[in-house]
Amino acid sequence: MEKEIALKELESTRWINLSQQNYINQVSIDCVIFGYQDRQLKVLIPKLSYKGDFWVLPSGFVLQDEDIDQAAERILRERTNIKGIYLEQFQVFGKANRNSKEFMNRLKDLNLEYLKTTDINLEDQPDYNWFTKRFISIGYYALVDINKVVPHKSIVDESIEWYNIHEIPPMVMDHNEILEKALKALRNDIDEKLNVFNLLPEKFTIAQVQEIYETIFERTYVRTNFQKKILEFNVLERLEKKFTGAANKAPYLYRFKDKISL
Amino acid sequence: MEKEIALKELESTRWINLSQQNYINQVSIDCVIFGYQDRQLKVLIPKLSYKGDFWVLPSGFVLQDEDIDQAAERILRERTNIKGIYLEQFQVFGKANRNSKEFMNRLKDLNLEYLKTTDINLEDQPDYNWFTKRFISIGYYALVDINKVVPHKSIVDESIEWYNIHEIPPMVMDHNEILEKALKALRNDIDEKLNVFNLLPEKFTIAQVQEIYETIFERTYVRTNFQKKILEFNVLERLEKKFTGAANKAPYLYRFKDKISL
Repeated sequence: MEKEIALKELESTRWINLSQQNYINQVSIDCVIFGYQDRQLKVLIPKLSYKGDFWVLPSGFVLQDEDIDQAAERILRERTNIKGIYLEQFQVFGKANRNSKEFMNRLKDLNLEYLKTTDINLEDQPDYNWFTKRFISIGYYALVDINKVVPHKSIVDESIEWYNIHEIPPMVMDHNEILEKALKALRNDIDEKLNVFNLLPEKFTIAQVQEIYETIFERTYVRTNFQKKILEFNVLERLEKKFTGAANKAPYLYRFKDKISL
Repeated sequence: MEKEIALKELESTRWINLSQQNYINQVSIDCVIFGYQDRQLKVLIPKLSYKGDFWVLPSGFVLQDEDIDQAAERILRERTNIKGIYLEQFQVFGKANRNSKEFMNRLKDLNLEYLKTTDINLEDQPDYNWFTKRFISIGYYALVDINKVVPHKSIVDESIEWYNIHEIPPMVMDHNEILEKALKALRNDIDEKLNVFNLLPEKFTIAQVQEIYETIFERTYVRTNFQKKILEFNVLERLEKKFTGAANKAPYLYRFKDKISL
């Protein structure tokens, strides 16, 4: 029974029966989910339910009949229960020495007692070899409003938490480096993809936009310069102020001129 | 003998013996090489030496012990003889229906007579299945000075030519779409990666930089605005003019402050 549960767990982590799934070999997807809330930028990171504090990015593999964008969405859903958000492909990680052997060995060493009680020998599992091969990983990121998503841990995880960008735990393999590259891509993409605007309500002030930029870029902007920069994108419509009789010092509200598909 | 030559050709195109090479399955690399010369942007495109006008991007596969960046360099060298240029990874093409079946069938139909004389049945070749599987392709691009590189066609090609960006021939599979995305990436990256500067001599005028920008973006810039934009990158050093005694109307020359690794 113990063994059965352990096998089920191993299976759910996809360390066995992987080749029976119709996955593409040696290709994986890693998701970096940035969350914004109250002037803070955070990252969603699950922790595996094994001894040894194994933090990992939400990751998985690509089915043969699945576009890679669909695979990224499915993987995010399976690992975090987050659905329907747009994921941006940003970089491929393809060093020849990129594999999970070290991670798997650490995991095995730390959980040896537990594995012994189950008669499971990790190396004997048919897919141990599959999983420890070199993997080329496609990185995806998203930027979401923390108030609008409710992540749930998957069966393989002990926890799933939002970590402040300055308090990221050490993750397995090159996942910390992948996160760094995702942050760089987010900053590079921000003006072109306008992906901060899905963090805003329908009507918003320029100051609200500035707050988000300042959080993501970790710098301040001069208010007038920032306003000029944002208005030059030429996607915002300024709404008329409602005259209330009182001194009308409220800032202008803006909204998008057209629906922008993000 | 005829058969031997044909087999050798097939082999050189890597349609056979592929699985004997130690390649990663279902992953490929496509290279888009932009060339600049005399205010024109061009793309380097080989044409396969088979009936039917098969233009293809320089493409290939990733060896197990090879970083993907190294693979891109090797593939470019093998297909074009171009060495030592920096290739920028820009996007992964991973639709589930992305395969070369249609291309292979067209090629077979058009070259059937020729193949018949050789007793080769394409479908019987051990790697026909390997090659016609779904492939996830990693796109790389580079921007080079056409005067500084001398491409050579490989054994599988009838020709290799620079095509003006407005006169690109129809290529196989999604290679035209890959080129479009590479052009978009080149334009997006240009200010950040400063990759136009490897097209310039050691000392150059701002007008020379402007010419390249205008060619790549297909627009004109106001001279003073452009100068301001470029100088704001803060990477250029203005050189003193040499006073020749004549009216000194020559524009200022600039060079890089420091070596920039591109």
